[in-house]
Amino acid sequence: MTAPREVRRLAERSRPGRADLDAVLDAGLVGTLSTVVEGAPWVVPMLYARDGDRLLLHGSTGAGALRHVAAGAPAALSVVHLDGIVVAHTTFDSSANYRSAVVYGTLRPITDPEEKRAALTRVSDAVLPGRDAEVRPMTGREVAATQVMAMEVRDGDWVVKVRTGGPGEPDEPTDAWTGVVPLRTVADEPLPDPGGGRPVPPSVRERVRRGASAV
Amino acid sequence: MTAPREVRRLAERSRPGRADLDAVLDAGLVGTLSTVVEGAPWVVPMLYARDGDRLLLHGSTGAGALRHVAAGAPAALSVVHLDGIVVAHTTFDSSANYRSAVVYGTLRPITDPEEKRAALTRVSDAVLPGRDAEVRPMTGREVAATQVMAMEVRDGDWVVKVRTGGPGEPDEPTDAWTGVVPLRTVADEPLPDPGGGRPVPPSVRERVRRGASAV
Repeated sequence: MTAPREVRRLAERSRPGRADLDAVLDAGLVGTLSTVVEGAPWVVPMLYARDGDRLLLHGSTGAGALRHVAAGAPAALSVVHLDGIVVAHTTFDSSANYRSAVVYGTLRPITDPEEKRAALTRVSDAVLPGRDAEVRPMTGREVAATQVMAMEVRDGDWVVKVRTGGPGEPDEPTDAWTGVVPLRTVADEPLPDPGGGRPVPPSVRERVRRGASAV
Repeated sequence: MTAPREVRRLAERSRPGRADLDAVLDAGLVGTLSTVVEGAPWVVPMLYARDGDRLLLHGSTGAGALRHVAAGAPAALSVVHLDGIVVAHTTFDSSANYRSAVVYGTLRPITDPEEKRAALTRVSDAVLPGRDAEVRPMTGREVAATQVMAMEVRDGDWVVKVRTGGPGEPDEPTDAWTGVVPLRTVADEPLPDPGGGRPVPPSVRERVRRGASAV
Protein backbone atom coordinates (compact mmCIF):
# COMPACT_ATOMS: atom_id res chain seq x y z
CA MET A 1 0.00 0.00 0.00
CA THR A 2 1.54 3.34 -1.07
CA ALA A 3 1.95 6.13 1.41
CA PRO A 4 -0.30 8.68 -0.32
CA ARG A 5 -3.22 6.30 -0.39
CA GLU A 6 -2.70 5.40 3.26
CA VAL A 7 -2.74 9.05 4.19
CA ARG A 8 -5.96 9.61 2.31
CA ARG A 9 -7.48 6.59 4.02
CA LEU A 10 -6.67 7.95 7.42
CA ALA A 11 -8.24 11.26 6.47
CA GLU A 12 -11.38 9.50 5.35
CA ARG A 13 -11.51 7.66 8.65
CA SER A 14 -11.22 10.99 10.43
CA ARG A 15 -11.99 11.54 14.08
CA PRO A 16 -14.83 14.03 14.06
CA GLY A 17 -16.06 16.26 16.86
CA ARG A 18 -18.85 16.10 19.35
CA ALA A 19 -21.54 17.05 16.82
CA ASP A 20 -20.47 14.07 14.74
CA LEU A 21 -20.65 11.82 17.79
CA ASP A 22 -24.21 12.98 18.39
CA ALA A 23 -25.08 12.40 14.73
CA VAL A 24 -23.77 8.82 14.81
CA LEU A 25 -25.59 8.08 18.07
CA ASP A 26 -28.82 9.70 16.87
CA ALA A 27 -28.74 7.69 13.64
CA GLY A 28 -29.43 4.47 15.54
CA LEU A 29 -31.71 2.83 18.07
CA VAL A 30 -29.76 -0.26 19.14
CA GLY A 31 -26.23 -0.50 20.50
CA THR A 32 -23.96 -2.93 22.31
CA LEU A 33 -23.38 -2.43 26.02
CA SER A 34 -20.08 -3.85 27.26
CA THR A 35 -18.88 -4.13 30.82
CA VAL A 36 -16.46 -6.29 32.78
CA VAL A 37 -17.46 -9.18 35.03
CA GLU A 38 -14.71 -11.05 36.86
CA GLY A 39 -12.08 -9.76 34.47
CA ALA A 40 -13.89 -10.81 31.30
CA PRO A 41 -16.07 -8.83 28.92
CA TRP A 42 -19.80 -9.02 29.44
CA VAL A 43 -21.87 -7.82 26.52
CA VAL A 44 -25.55 -7.25 25.72
CA PRO A 45 -27.33 -5.46 22.87
CA MET A 46 -29.72 -2.75 24.04
CA LEU A 47 -31.98 -0.01 22.83
CA TYR A 48 -30.65 3.40 23.81
CA ALA A 49 -31.54 7.06 23.46
CA ARG A 50 -29.36 10.14 23.59
CA ASP A 51 -30.71 12.87 25.84
CA GLY A 52 -28.35 15.81 25.42
CA ASP A 53 -25.11 14.96 27.21
CA ARG A 54 -26.22 11.57 28.42
CA LEU A 55 -27.23 8.21 27.05
CA LEU A 56 -30.29 6.49 28.46
CA LEU A 57 -30.68 2.74 28.73
CA HIS A 58 -33.55 0.80 30.22
CA GLY A 59 -34.58 -2.71 31.07
CA SER A 60 -36.41 -4.85 33.56
CA THR A 61 -35.37 -4.45 37.18
CA GLY A 62 -34.96 -8.23 37.18
CA ALA A 63 -32.13 -8.26 34.64
CA GLY A 64 -28.89 -9.18 36.39
CA ALA A 65 -26.78 -7.50 33.75
CA LEU A 66 -28.26 -4.13 34.36
CA ARG A 67 -27.85 -4.53 38.08
CA HIS A 68 -24.13 -5.07 37.55
CA VAL A 69 -23.50 -2.02 35.43
CA ALA A 70 -25.88 -0.02 37.58
CA ALA A 71 -23.62 -0.79 40.51
CA GLY A 72 -20.89 1.36 39.00
CA ALA A 73 -18.87 -1.02 36.83
CA PRO A 74 -17.03 0.63 33.94
CA ALA A 75 -19.09 0.35 30.80
CA ALA A 76 -19.07 1.20 27.11
CA LEU A 77 -21.87 1.67 24.63
CA SER A 78 -20.99 0.93 21.01
CA VAL A 79 -23.03 1.85 17.95
CA VAL A 80 -22.13 1.01 14.36
CA HIS A 81 -23.81 1.73 11.05
CA LEU A 82 -22.56 -0.20 8.01
CA ASP A 83 -23.02 2.18 5.07
CA GLY A 84 -21.42 0.30 2.22
CA ILE A 85 -18.93 -2.20 0.90
CA VAL A 86 -15.91 -0.61 -0.75
CA VAL A 87 -14.81 -2.68 -3.74
CA ALA A 88 -11.16 -2.04 -4.58
CA HIS A 89 -8.93 -3.46 -7.29
CA THR A 90 -7.53 -5.95 -4.78
CA THR A 91 -9.00 -7.83 -1.87
CA PHE A 92 -6.33 -6.23 0.33
CA ASP A 93 -7.59 -2.72 -0.44
CA SER A 94 -11.29 -3.53 -0.22
CA SER A 95 -12.97 -2.10 2.83
CA ALA A 96 -16.26 -0.90 4.32
CA ASN A 97 -17.88 2.48 4.72
CA TYR A 98 -19.23 2.89 8.22
CA ARG A 99 -19.98 5.25 11.07
CA SER A 100 -19.20 4.05 14.58
CA ALA A 101 -19.27 5.48 18.08
CA VAL A 102 -18.03 4.06 21.36
CA VAL A 103 -18.85 5.97 24.55
CA TYR A 104 -16.98 4.97 27.70
CA GLY A 105 -18.23 5.73 31.18
CA THR A 106 -20.23 4.55 34.14
CA LEU A 107 -23.95 3.99 34.34
CA ARG A 108 -25.89 5.78 37.04
CA PRO A 109 -29.29 4.34 37.96
CA ILE A 110 -32.07 6.90 37.81
CA THR A 111 -34.17 6.33 40.90
CA ASP A 112 -36.12 9.54 41.44
CA PRO A 113 -39.64 8.69 40.17
CA GLU A 114 -40.15 11.95 38.29
CA GLU A 115 -36.69 11.91 36.70
CA LYS A 116 -37.23 8.26 35.85
CA ARG A 117 -40.59 8.93 34.25
CA ALA A 118 -39.11 11.74 32.17
CA ALA A 119 -36.22 9.51 31.08
CA LEU A 120 -38.58 6.70 30.08
CA THR A 121 -40.63 9.17 28.06
CA ARG A 122 -37.43 10.26 26.32
CA VAL A 123 -36.54 6.65 25.50
CA SER A 124 -40.05 5.96 24.24
CA ASP A 125 -39.92 9.12 22.14
CA ALA A 126 -36.67 8.04 20.47
CA VAL A 127 -38.21 4.70 19.49
CA LEU A 128 -41.75 5.90 18.67
CA PRO A 129 -41.81 9.68 18.36
CA GLY A 130 -44.85 11.11 20.12
CA ARG A 131 -46.23 7.71 21.15
CA ASP A 132 -46.44 8.89 24.72
CA ALA A 133 -49.35 11.19 23.87
CA GLU A 134 -51.24 8.46 22.01
CA VAL A 135 -51.52 5.96 24.85
CA ARG A 136 -52.41 6.07 28.53
CA PRO A 137 -49.72 7.40 30.88
CA MET A 138 -47.30 4.92 32.44
CA THR A 139 -48.54 3.71 35.81
CA GLY A 140 -46.42 4.08 38.93
CA ARG A 141 -46.10 0.31 38.99
CA GLU A 142 -44.71 0.28 35.45
CA VAL A 143 -42.21 2.97 36.30
CA ALA A 144 -41.14 1.01 39.38
CA ALA A 145 -40.73 -2.22 37.38
CA THR A 146 -38.32 -0.57 34.94
CA GLN A 147 -34.67 0.16 35.52
CA VAL A 148 -33.34 3.25 33.80
CA MET A 149 -29.69 4.20 33.64
CA ALA A 150 -27.83 7.22 32.38
CA MET A 151 -24.25 7.38 31.09
CA GLU A 152 -22.74 10.84 30.85
CA VAL A 153 -20.98 11.65 27.57
CA ARG A 154 -17.69 13.06 28.86
CA ASP A 155 -15.03 14.87 26.84
CA GLY A 156 -12.29 12.51 25.79
CA ASP A 157 -14.22 9.39 26.74
CA TRP A 158 -15.58 8.56 23.33
CA VAL A 159 -14.34 7.47 19.93
CA VAL A 160 -16.04 8.19 16.63
CA LYS A 161 -14.90 6.72 13.34
CA VAL A 162 -16.32 7.51 9.94
CA ARG A 163 -15.22 6.09 6.60
CA THR A 164 -16.81 7.38 3.43
CA GLY A 165 -15.98 7.41 -0.26
CA GLY A 166 -14.61 4.99 -2.79
CA PRO A 167 -11.59 2.69 -2.75
CA GLY A 168 -9.08 5.22 -4.05
CA GLU A 169 -6.63 4.89 -6.91
CA PRO A 170 -4.85 1.59 -7.49
CA ASP A 171 -1.06 1.38 -7.48
CA GLU A 172 -1.10 0.09 -11.02
CA PRO A 173 -3.69 0.16 -13.83
CA THR A 174 -6.38 -2.51 -13.50
CA ASP A 175 -9.33 -3.83 -15.44
CA ALA A 176 -11.24 -4.66 -12.27
CA TRP A 177 -14.56 -2.96 -11.53
CA THR A 178 -14.15 -0.72 -8.49
CA GLY A 179 -16.70 1.28 -6.57
CA VAL A 180 -19.10 1.04 -3.64
CA VAL A 181 -22.17 -1.05 -2.80
CA PRO A 182 -24.32 1.27 -0.64
CA LEU A 183 -26.20 -0.26 2.29
CA ARG A 184 -29.00 1.29 4.31
CA THR A 185 -31.74 0.29 6.72
CA VAL A 186 -35.32 0.92 5.71
CA ALA A 187 -38.71 0.51 7.33
CA ASP A 188 -41.46 -1.34 5.53
CA GLU A 189 -45.17 -0.62 5.80
CA PRO A 190 -46.37 -1.15 9.38
CA LEU A 191 -48.07 -4.47 10.11
CA PRO A 192 -51.17 -3.98 12.27
CA ASP A 193 -52.21 -6.60 14.80
CA PRO A 194 -55.06 -8.84 13.64
CA GLY A 195 -58.46 -7.32 14.32
CA GLY A 196 -57.12 -3.85 13.72
CA GLY A 197 -58.45 -1.50 11.09
CA ARG A 198 -57.54 1.59 13.08
CA PRO A 199 -55.66 4.29 11.21
CA VAL A 200 -51.86 4.19 11.58
CA PRO A 201 -51.06 6.84 14.22
CA PRO A 202 -48.53 9.66 13.72
CA SER A 203 -45.89 8.00 15.96
CA VAL A 204 -45.83 4.91 13.77
CA ARG A 205 -45.88 6.92 10.53
CA GLU A 206 -42.91 8.89 11.85
CA ARG A 207 -41.02 5.70 12.74
CA VAL A 208 -41.58 4.42 9.20
CA ARG A 209 -40.29 7.71 7.81
CA ARG A 210 -37.15 7.64 10.00
CA GLY A 211 -36.36 3.96 9.43
CA ALA A 212 -33.93 2.83 12.14
CA SER A 213 -32.77 6.36 12.97
CA ALA A 214 -33.72 8.00 16.26
CA VAL A 215 -34.11 11.42 14.64
CA MET B 1 -47.82 -6.97 33.54
CA THR B 2 -49.80 -10.19 33.78
CA ALA B 3 -48.04 -13.50 34.17
CA PRO B 4 -49.35 -15.14 30.97
CA ARG B 5 -48.05 -12.32 28.78
CA GLU B 6 -44.68 -12.42 30.51
CA VAL B 7 -44.42 -16.14 29.89
CA ARG B 8 -45.24 -15.68 26.21
CA ARG B 9 -42.65 -12.95 25.94
CA LEU B 10 -39.96 -15.18 27.35
CA ALA B 11 -40.92 -17.86 24.85
CA GLU B 12 -40.65 -15.39 22.00
CA ARG B 13 -37.19 -14.41 23.22
CA SER B 14 -36.20 -18.06 23.23
CA ARG B 15 -32.62 -19.28 23.39
CA PRO B 16 -32.14 -21.20 20.19
CA GLY B 17 -29.48 -23.76 19.34
CA ARG B 18 -26.21 -23.72 17.51
CA ALA B 19 -27.84 -23.58 14.05
CA ASP B 20 -29.63 -20.42 15.15
CA LEU B 21 -26.36 -18.93 16.37
CA ASP B 22 -24.83 -19.59 12.97
CA ALA B 23 -27.85 -18.04 11.25
CA VAL B 24 -27.61 -14.85 13.33
CA LEU B 25 -23.86 -14.60 12.73
CA ASP B 26 -24.18 -15.32 9.01
CA ALA B 27 -26.87 -12.66 8.62
CA GLY B 28 -24.34 -9.89 9.27
CA LEU B 29 -20.97 -8.53 8.27
CA VAL B 30 -20.10 -6.16 11.10
CA GLY B 31 -19.96 -6.82 14.84
CA THR B 32 -18.62 -5.31 18.02
CA LEU B 33 -15.43 -6.75 19.50
CA SER B 34 -15.13 -6.21 23.25
CA THR B 35 -12.17 -6.97 25.47
CA VAL B 36 -10.79 -5.75 28.79
CA VAL B 37 -7.90 -3.34 29.17
CA GLU B 38 -6.78 -2.42 32.68
CA GLY B 39 -10.08 -3.56 34.15
CA ALA B 40 -12.25 -1.51 31.80
CA PRO B 41 -14.07 -2.47 28.63
CA TRP B 42 -12.33 -1.78 25.34
CA VAL B 43 -14.57 -1.93 22.30
CA VAL B 44 -14.19 -1.67 18.52
CA PRO B 45 -16.56 -2.42 15.63
CA MET B 46 -15.14 -4.90 13.12
CA LEU B 47 -15.98 -6.87 10.03
CA TYR B 48 -16.09 -10.58 10.77
CA ALA B 49 -16.74 -13.86 8.98
CA ARG B 50 -17.83 -17.21 10.33
CA ASP B 51 -15.78 -20.14 9.09
CA GLY B 52 -17.41 -23.26 10.47
CA ASP B 53 -16.69 -23.40 14.19
CA ARG B 54 -14.61 -20.25 14.31
CA LEU B 55 -15.00 -16.53 13.75
CA LEU B 56 -12.41 -14.70 11.70
CA LEU B 57 -11.39 -11.09 12.30
CA HIS B 58 -8.75 -9.11 10.49
CA GLY B 59 -7.04 -5.77 10.59
CA SER B 60 -3.76 -3.97 10.11
CA THR B 61 -0.81 -5.41 12.02
CA GLY B 62 -0.32 -1.85 13.30
CA ALA B 63 -3.61 -1.71 15.20
CA GLY B 64 -2.91 -1.77 18.94
CA ALA B 65 -6.32 -3.13 19.73
CA LEU B 66 -5.83 -6.26 17.76
CA ARG B 67 -2.43 -6.79 19.30
CA HIS B 68 -4.04 -6.76 22.73
CA VAL B 69 -6.72 -9.31 21.98
CA ALA B 70 -4.27 -11.33 19.91
CA ALA B 71 -2.17 -11.67 23.05
CA GLY B 72 -4.86 -13.82 24.63
CA ALA B 73 -7.10 -11.37 26.47
CA PRO B 74 -10.67 -12.56 26.99
CA ALA B 75 -12.88 -11.21 24.22
CA ALA B 76 -16.46 -11.18 22.98
CA LEU B 77 -17.91 -10.59 19.56
CA SER B 78 -21.44 -9.19 19.51
CA VAL B 79 -23.77 -9.02 16.52
CA VAL B 80 -27.26 -7.52 16.51
CA HIS B 81 -29.92 -7.17 13.84
CA LEU B 82 -32.83 -4.84 14.58
CA ASP B 83 -35.80 -6.35 12.76
CA GLY B 84 -38.66 -4.17 13.88
CA ILE B 85 -40.28 -1.86 16.39
CA VAL B 86 -43.06 -3.50 18.35
CA VAL B 87 -45.86 -1.02 19.01
CA ALA B 88 -47.94 -2.06 22.01
CA HIS B 89 -50.96 -0.44 23.65
CA THR B 90 -48.67 1.13 26.24
CA THR B 91 -45.14 2.50 26.12
CA PHE B 92 -44.27 0.01 28.87
CA ASP B 93 -45.15 -2.98 26.67
CA SER B 94 -43.60 -1.62 23.48
CA SER B 95 -40.44 -3.41 22.46
CA ALA B 96 -38.22 -4.34 19.55
CA ASN B 97 -37.86 -7.42 17.38
CA TYR B 98 -34.23 -8.40 17.01
CA ARG B 99 -31.73 -11.21 16.59
CA SER B 100 -28.53 -11.00 18.59
CA ALA B 101 -25.50 -13.16 19.22
CA VAL B 102 -22.61 -12.78 21.64
CA VAL B 103 -19.71 -15.21 21.36
CA TYR B 104 -17.21 -15.31 24.23
CA GLY B 105 -13.71 -16.61 23.87
CA THR B 106 -10.10 -15.85 23.13
CA LEU B 107 -8.60 -14.75 19.87
CA ARG B 108 -5.74 -16.75 18.42
CA PRO B 109 -3.54 -15.02 15.86
CA ILE B 110 -3.19 -16.97 12.63
CA THR B 111 0.48 -16.79 11.69
CA ASP B 112 1.07 -19.67 9.29
CA PRO B 113 1.18 -17.97 5.86
CA GLU B 114 -0.97 -20.56 4.09
CA GLU B 115 -3.55 -20.73 6.86
CA LYS B 116 -3.55 -16.93 6.95
CA ARG B 117 -4.06 -16.64 3.21
CA ALA B 118 -6.96 -19.10 3.35
CA ALA B 119 -8.52 -17.19 6.24
CA LEU B 120 -8.21 -13.87 4.40
CA THR B 121 -9.83 -15.42 1.35
CA ARG B 122 -12.68 -16.62 3.57
CA VAL B 123 -13.12 -13.10 5.01
CA SER B 124 -13.04 -11.56 1.54
CA ASP B 125 -15.56 -14.10 0.34
CA ALA B 126 -17.99 -13.23 3.13
CA VAL B 127 -17.83 -9.55 2.18
CA LEU B 128 -17.64 -9.91 -1.62
CA PRO B 129 -18.54 -13.48 -2.64
CA GLY B 130 -16.15 -14.74 -5.30
CA ARG B 131 -14.18 -11.49 -5.50
CA ASP B 132 -10.99 -13.43 -4.95
CA ALA B 133 -11.21 -14.94 -8.43
CA GLU B 134 -11.86 -11.56 -10.08
CA VAL B 135 -8.68 -9.78 -8.96
CA ARG B 136 -5.00 -10.61 -8.76
CA PRO B 137 -3.93 -12.86 -5.88
CA MET B 138 -2.85 -11.26 -2.62
CA THR B 139 0.89 -10.68 -2.50
CA GLY B 140 3.05 -12.10 0.26
CA ARG B 141 3.62 -8.56 1.46
CA GLU B 142 -0.13 -7.94 1.73
CA VAL B 143 -0.62 -11.15 3.68
CA ALA B 144 2.23 -10.16 6.01
CA ALA B 145 0.77 -6.68 6.56
CA THR B 146 -2.56 -8.08 7.73
CA GLN B 147 -3.35 -9.52 11.12
CA VAL B 148 -5.90 -12.32 11.15
CA MET B 149 -7.40 -13.80 14.26
CA ALA B 150 -9.68 -16.73 14.95
CA MET B 151 -12.08 -17.18 17.86
CA GLU B 152 -13.39 -20.69 18.38
CA VAL B 153 -17.13 -21.01 18.91
CA ARG B 154 -17.26 -23.19 22.03
CA ASP B 155 -20.31 -24.92 23.48
CA GLY B 156 -21.80 -22.87 26.29
CA ASP B 157 -19.77 -19.76 25.50
CA TRP B 158 -22.34 -17.95 23.42
CA VAL B 159 -25.73 -16.33 23.87
CA VAL B 160 -28.35 -15.96 21.17
CA LYS B 161 -31.53 -13.98 21.64
CA VAL B 162 -34.36 -13.70 19.16
CA ARG B 163 -37.57 -11.77 19.57
CA THR B 164 -40.23 -11.98 16.87
CA GLY B 165 -43.93 -11.28 16.58
CA GLY B 166 -46.35 -8.62 17.70
CA PRO B 167 -46.89 -6.93 21.03
CA GLY B 168 -49.33 -9.47 22.46
CA GLU B 169 -52.72 -8.90 24.00
CA PRO B 170 -53.31 -5.90 26.22
CA ASP B 171 -54.52 -6.34 29.80
CA GLU B 172 -57.58 -4.27 29.04
CA PRO B 173 -59.37 -3.25 25.83
CA THR B 174 -57.74 -0.33 24.05
CA ASP B 175 -58.34 1.89 21.05
CA ALA B 176 -54.63 2.27 20.35
CA TRP B 177 -53.14 1.01 17.08
CA THR B 178 -50.82 -1.90 17.82
CA GLY B 179 -48.52 -3.83 15.53
CA VAL B 180 -44.99 -3.89 14.19
CA VAL B 181 -42.86 -1.58 12.06
CA PRO B 182 -40.53 -3.94 10.13
CA LEU B 183 -36.93 -2.84 9.58
CA ARG B 184 -34.39 -4.33 7.19
CA THR B 185 -31.09 -3.47 5.58
CA VAL B 186 -30.96 -3.24 1.80
CA ALA B 187 -28.25 -2.64 -0.78
CA ASP B 188 -28.74 0.01 -3.43
CA GLU B 189 -27.39 -0.12 -6.97
CA PRO B 190 -23.57 -0.24 -6.93
CA LEU B 191 -21.79 3.07 -7.53
CA PRO B 192 -18.84 2.62 -9.93
CA ASP B 193 -15.72 4.73 -9.55
CA PRO B 194 -15.49 7.62 -12.02
CA GLY B 195 -14.00 6.58 -15.34
CA GLY B 196 -15.58 3.18 -15.08
CA GLY B 197 -17.98 1.75 -17.60
CA ARG B 198 -16.95 -1.82 -16.91
CA PRO B 199 -19.75 -4.30 -16.30
CA VAL B 200 -20.63 -4.94 -12.64
CA PRO B 201 -18.89 -8.22 -11.77
CA PRO B 202 -20.65 -11.25 -10.21
CA SER B 203 -19.15 -10.61 -6.73
CA VAL B 204 -20.69 -7.14 -6.58
CA ARG B 205 -24.02 -8.31 -8.00
CA GLU B 206 -24.10 -11.01 -5.35
CA ARG B 207 -23.34 -8.49 -2.60
CA VAL B 208 -26.24 -6.34 -3.81
CA ARG B 209 -28.51 -9.39 -3.78
CA ARG B 210 -27.49 -10.35 -0.22
CA GLY B 211 -27.69 -6.83 1.20
CA ALA B 212 -25.77 -6.78 4.50
CA SER B 213 -25.96 -10.55 4.99
CA ALA B 214 -22.85 -12.73 4.66
CA VAL B 215 -24.81 -15.56 3.05
